[in-house]
Amino acid sequence: MLTQEVKDVTRVACIGAGPIGGGWTAHFLAKGYKVKTYVHDTAEVEALKRLIENAWESLIEMGLSKGASLDNFSWSSDLEEVVEDAEFIQESVPEVLSLKQSFYKTLDSLVDPNVVIASSTSGLSMTDIQIHCENPGSTVVGHPFNPPYLLPLVEMIGGEKTNLQTIQWTKAFYEAAGKSLLVLKKEVPGFIATRLQEAIWREALHMVANGEATVEQIDQAVVNGPGPRWALMGPCEIFHVGGGEGGMAYCLDQFGPALKLPWTRLVAPELTSELRNEMVDGCERLSEGQDFASLTKKMNRGLVEIAKMKKEKFG
Amino acid sequence: MLTQEVKDVTRVACIGAGPIGGGWTAHFLAKGYKVKTYVHDTAEVEALKRLIENAWESLIEMGLSKGASLDNFSWSSDLEEVVEDAEFIQESVPEVLSLKQSFYKTLDSLVDPNVVIASSTSGLSMTDIQIHCENPGSTVVGHPFNPPYLLPLVEMIGGEKTNLQTIQWTKAFYEAAGKSLLVLKKEVPGFIATRLQEAIWREALHMVANGEATVEQIDQAVVNGPGPRWALMGPCEIFHVGGGEGGMAYCLDQFGPALKLPWTRLVAPELTSELRNEMVDGCERLSEGQDFASLTKKMNRGLVEIAKMKKEKFG
Repeated sequence: MLTQEVKDVTRVACIGAGPIGGGWTAHFLAKGYKVKTYVHDTAEVEALKRLIENAWESLIEMGLSKGASLDNFSWSSDLEEVVEDAEFIQESVPEVLSLKQSFYKTLDSLVDPNVVIASSTSGLSMTDIQIHCENPGSTVVGHPFNPPYLLPLVEMIGGEKTNLQTIQWTKAFYEAAGKSLLVLKKEVPGFIATRLQEAIWREALHMVANGEATVEQIDQAVVNGPGPRWALMGPCEIFHVGGGEGGMAYCLDQFGPALKLPWTRLVAPELTSELRNEMVDGCERLSEGQDFASLTKKMNRGLVEIAKMKKEKFG
Repeated sequence: MLTQEVKDVTRVACIGAGPIGGGWTAHFLAKGYKVKTYVHDTAEVEALKRLIENAWESLIEMGLSKGASLDNFSWSSDLEEVVEDAEFIQESVPEVLSLKQSFYKTLDSLVDPNVVIASSTSGLSMTDIQIHCENPGSTVVGHPFNPPYLLPLVEMIGGEKTNLQTIQWTKAFYEAAGKSLLVLKKEVPGFIATRLQEAIWREALHMVANGEATVEQIDQAVVNGPGPRWALMGPCEIFHVGGGEGGMAYCLDQFGPALKLPWTRLVAPELTSELRNEMVDGCERLSEGQDFASLTKKMNRGLVEIAKMKKEKFG
């Protein structure tokens, strides 16, 4: 066991006051924790407070946990003071490896080795980040999506020197704090969600750089096209539904040849029969045997609600 | 002018009875048109009817146009009969270039050159599709997203031999039929939305092929992570908000170096100062000068509604 039973944790430290560090602060406050946030530059304090206050409006609507209060928030630009009695630490400093490494070296000297330090990194590896730590066992990646107080995903993966116990404890802690966990088996750069998002982002940058699309066209294409579906189903299940009654199998058989076409700058893998079957079997499991009509109804119900909500709230 | 004023069009032909052809059929019916659908194999008729009936439930909720009725639907497996009095033709046959070319050659011999034939192709070029037509001037790409009756996007682009007048007429016709148009300037394979979607899809296939993620993990990553944001904002504006008060400029300056990291198999373009400025200026235009707090409020309001709706409708 690490220092605390998950259910007994009451004090969280957030390192970093940008949109992610501030977003985590709001999230943990809404879940009833006492949160102390490290602010590198006191000039950031006003923006941090505005961020938390704006977040709080949404969090009230989502429902606050028992005991949740903005009075449980404090900040400091003294790192030692921020972490001294923390029972869990969420680090969200800028995405520069040397900077993360130097923060972890300092934290390593300040923090009880039994307290977990989780990094919000979007894709750096914990094996690289923990390299200068004497006690790397309790460091782990816990990558959220912005805003961390509204999107539930956290991707978790340890570095080479992370203890298995840390992974287990942190998964339980995040779940108790209302997150949906994705525990990766391999330390892949960019994890899963960032890799997928980064592929879209890089294709978009190429298109703008080549005069193939404007920034506005790219955003319009997503929001009026595939975007609303992604709020409801992932890319695999969407194609499973898109394949009609034949599902993913029909879809791969029909669109398989399109994988050879230059429809993105990303070259596709060979569509071997193993890969084909893995995609088809995965979709069967995902859809839990629901047929095309049921899946379509589910998708459509969500799309109708999203369309109505957007019309009502955004005109 | 093509045969008809846009507002006088009453009869539409849909070629193809799969999810896209059937989805277009439902869309045009809901907008009050008489629709005749070409069914290649009569074995598909039952699935087509089920698709239209399921779509109709959602379309009633979205609001039917005056005169809309399922009684305006008919089908035939005789192509000539389907197109004989059509004033607009939407083609949605499988994504195989030789098949599309042969359909267009046949349609070319059957259809008045003043009637527009639009292709639902996800990424083939109209220059290639129209190659055997004697009257290619009125053929054009009109690419929808599935389901075409709920997602508004249509990407339009002509081939080399498409008349400018066809583009103008078809844009006006689709808009009258309730669609959001994106008229491309260049004939890029995969257009805009498919290219972006295909980049995600290929990265996902690579990850499954390499044992880096399961089908379930990929879908969970999108639905609980970036997915709900994409229903509300495109990838550019999302990073503009993600950059906090510094917006896209801060975001590119912080994450610029990450473009060199292997966070997807897609190599990024060089982040030149021209590209950086184009992204920053595009986001300023997109957000119409709204500041970080306003954009965050808008995004959060949508995310809260989506989260509540998903909880209520899907548990």
